[in-house]
Amino acid sequence: MSLAIILFSGGIDSTTTAAIAQEKGFSLMLLSFDYGQRHRIELERAARVAEQFSNASHVTFPLDFSGIGGSALTSSIDVPKNRSDYREIPVTYVPGRNLIFLSIAAAFGEVHHAYDLFYGANVLDYSGYPDCRPEFIAALETTLRFGTKAGAEGEEFRIHAPLLQFTKAEIIRTGLRLGIDYRHTHSCYDPGPNGSPCGECDSCLIRRKGFEAAGIQDPANVK
Amino acid sequence: MSLAIILFSGGIDSTTTAAIAQEKGFSLMLLSFDYGQRHRIELERAARVAEQFSNASHVTFPLDFSGIGGSALTSSIDVPKNRSDYREIPVTYVPGRNLIFLSIAAAFGEVHHAYDLFYGANVLDYSGYPDCRPEFIAALETTLRFGTKAGAEGEEFRIHAPLLQFTKAEIIRTGLRLGIDYRHTHSCYDPGPNGSPCGECDSCLIRRKGFEAAGIQDPANVK
Repeated sequence: MSLAIILFSGGIDSTTTAAIAQEKGFSLMLLSFDYGQRHRIELERAARVAEQFSNASHVTFPLDFSGIGGSALTSSIDVPKNRSDYREIPVTYVPGRNLIFLSIAAAFGEVHHAYDLFYGANVLDYSGYPDCRPEFIAALETTLRFGTKAGAEGEEFRIHAPLLQFTKAEIIRTGLRLGIDYRHTHSCYDPGPNGSPCGECDSCLIRRKGFEAAGIQDPANVK
Repeated sequence: MSLAIILFSGGIDSTTTAAIAQEKGFSLMLLSFDYGQRHRIELERAARVAEQFSNASHVTFPLDFSGIGGSALTSSIDVPKNRSDYREIPVTYVPGRNLIFLSIAAAFGEVHHAYDLFYGANVLDYSGYPDCRPEFIAALETTLRFGTKAGAEGEEFRIHAPLLQFTKAEIIRTGLRLGIDYRHTHSCYDPGPNGSPCGECDSCLIRRKGFEAAGIQDPANVK
């Protein structure tokens, strides 16, 4: 059984991505990042969500982005609420995040001889993040071919983004078909002190629209 | 004055690279990484070496590679001594290191509107590290064009590796011409408890040969 490394926040997208990798026959390294995100609850939830996968390990990598700044997710910039225009790149963009996360995933991959990296990038509901574009994925695969020992020795890193063209409703339906329980998945960028979602950030709005479009009640909201 | 970001270990190569960037008219952000390297003395030395640059800030970014493992520089694997064949990639290779470092440098660059990234890669004396190859640099520039907000907005990241084709002797002569004092630069992968170089690792051997070829006494050895 070949090992895949999954960028794993424990949200809907990365959880569904993990389920897809598992269906393809991979064992899983679920890689979460403690990057000083203001939505710290994400890390606790990721550990709970990870429990539903067999043949999986969950690793949390510490990465202190606070010194870089520039993002509403890691510094004191306010998280925008009730946005309606997703064409502009929002201040919740964390500079270089997916590139840095995938680079670290590739480093784990080199050590564990795991050359299949999965992440939940999505071009439709992606809030305009540039590091969710297919051109980025292709360029990074080339970079890994030339810039790693494994690549120099003939191994081929593959970056899988199986959700790239999915709507949020399709993502949710796919996950449910694969047996995913979304109850503990976390989406909100700006949760309350008890972890409750704000309901107004991009991530909350996209989640709500997704469950509505799928015609399914969000299990996280069932009391 | 435009800002450049320099991957800065405080060794001969990165110090010379910083001097070249300064000569080109850039102000400098000297970016060091506390990545759990066994040669911890490197970080203290980097701060001392950084003092000789004007219009420069020195930033140390914490990055815990110990969970990744797989390298003699960050885990309990022995540092090889007195190697003579540099064609093989050595165990001092840290998986993904330059890719991760440059990705983080690009994140700083996005926040500070600094799109010139410098690092001291070198193909001749590089001990076979794949992330010092020109193909890697070109691929990463493409990745940054597609994968960053700055790139999406039309900014062009440039990765400068001015030492790429230099011999160690040429690097040393260049630095001396630019007024660099190499006294506090650190090279050894496996220093003694007081920070003294082992004299036998790849990095010590390359340094010694470089000063010999340049016909100059290593100022670090002057008592």
